[in-house]
Amino acid sequence: MPLLRIDLYEGRSDDEIAKLLDAIHAVMLGAFKVPARDRYQIVSEHAPSRMIMEDTGLDIPRTSKFVMLQVTTRPRTREMKELFYKEMVTALELKCGVPPSDVMVNFVTCADEDWSFGLGRAQFLTKEL
Amino acid sequence: MPLLRIDLYEGRSDDEIAKLLDAIHAVMLGAFKVPARDRYQIVSEHAPSRMIMEDTGLDIPRTSKFVMLQVTTRPRTREMKELFYKEMVTALELKCGVPPSDVMVNFVTCADEDWSFGLGRAQFLTKEL
Amino acid sequence: MPLLRIDLYEGRSDDEIAKLLDAIHAVMLGAFKVPARDRYQIVSEHAPSRMIMEDTGLDIPRTSKFVMLQVTTRPRTREMKELFYKEMVTALELKCGVPPSDVMVNFVTCADEDWSFGLGRAQFLTKEL
Repeated sequence: MPLLRIDLYEGRSDDEIAKLLDAIHAVMLGAFKVPARDRYQIVSEHAPSRMIMEDTGLDIPRTSKFVMLQVTTRPRTREMKELFYKEMVTALELKCGVPPSDVMVNFVTCADEDWSFGLGRAQFLTKEL
Repeated sequence: MPLLRIDLYEGRSDDEIAKLLDAIHAVMLGAFKVPARDRYQIVSEHAPSRMIMEDTGLDIPRTSKFVMLQVTTRPRTREMKELFYKEMVTALELKCGVPPSDVMVNFVTCADEDWSFGLGRAQFLTKEL
Repeated sequence: MPLLRIDLYEGRSDDEIAKLLDAIHAVMLGAFKVPARDRYQIVSEHAPSRMIMEDTGLDIPRTSKFVMLQVTTRPRTREMKELFYKEMVTALELKCGVPPSDVMVNFVTCADEDWSFGLGRAQFLTKEL
């Protein structure tokens, strides 16, 4: 159920995008312990003039490989989020060559009643999930 | 005031998009009892490689007609949301030929002070709304 | 840290976009008292048929210069948000010729633990920020 909005700079090939999405999904599964098909990913690609990503003065360099992940989810513990942050940079560097300095994440939290995965039902309320 | 982000696969005509947005808006009006011109819809269209929408193991098939609705709103009751889910799939099937299995919804909640509709004012706080 | 999603109608030049983003950032700095490099802006541009922005019956006219700002942030006071709304319309009119009736803002709130700016760390938790 987490819904992931993934904002990238233009320039990756289809194959690179596919690998990136697979790597992101694998980390999410491990950190949140959700079903394998709990996969909802939306990619948007931007010209450099349309996505400005600085560093709040943290001295973190950014490159064209930058990945912004905005994750909308029902509540997750602080520990789960910290695990997600750590494992994400490790996996994206290893599998996709994205430097850890190029991975930014933001979580937005909502509730069980806030999701319908289809068929007009709120599957967390009906206990289908 | 709900702000609706509507993510679709590429391929719909302008006319199909217009009908879809009208149908979505009509359901929103009925479920939330908001003014007729409380309409804020943003559509983004994606290649299949850029939007991966599975089913959390619920065995819900997805097609190219898939519609992802992310609704940012001030608080709504669980009943209102459940009504929104149900009426949305009914309307989108009837008016737009979208199967109920292709309609996914997510709500994100914010407060009255979180909206300015223009003119630099927070209209829920000024009591204009 | 606020992450700003900025939705516009197609038609602005690169220079107009750059000026708009600079103006938005300057207001954000002033209203929220954040570091100068706390800048995270993502622009999406839409055909008129893909972005429908009415007025909830407030009688606010919209033009092709319309700017929708969705701001995801850790908690801000009501006063900060009201200041943000007011100063945003003033600055965008003065610097970019955007009428105050064309500026809509929505805030979404999250927590300190919900941000990683890179390197796999939650910089608000590690006290780097």
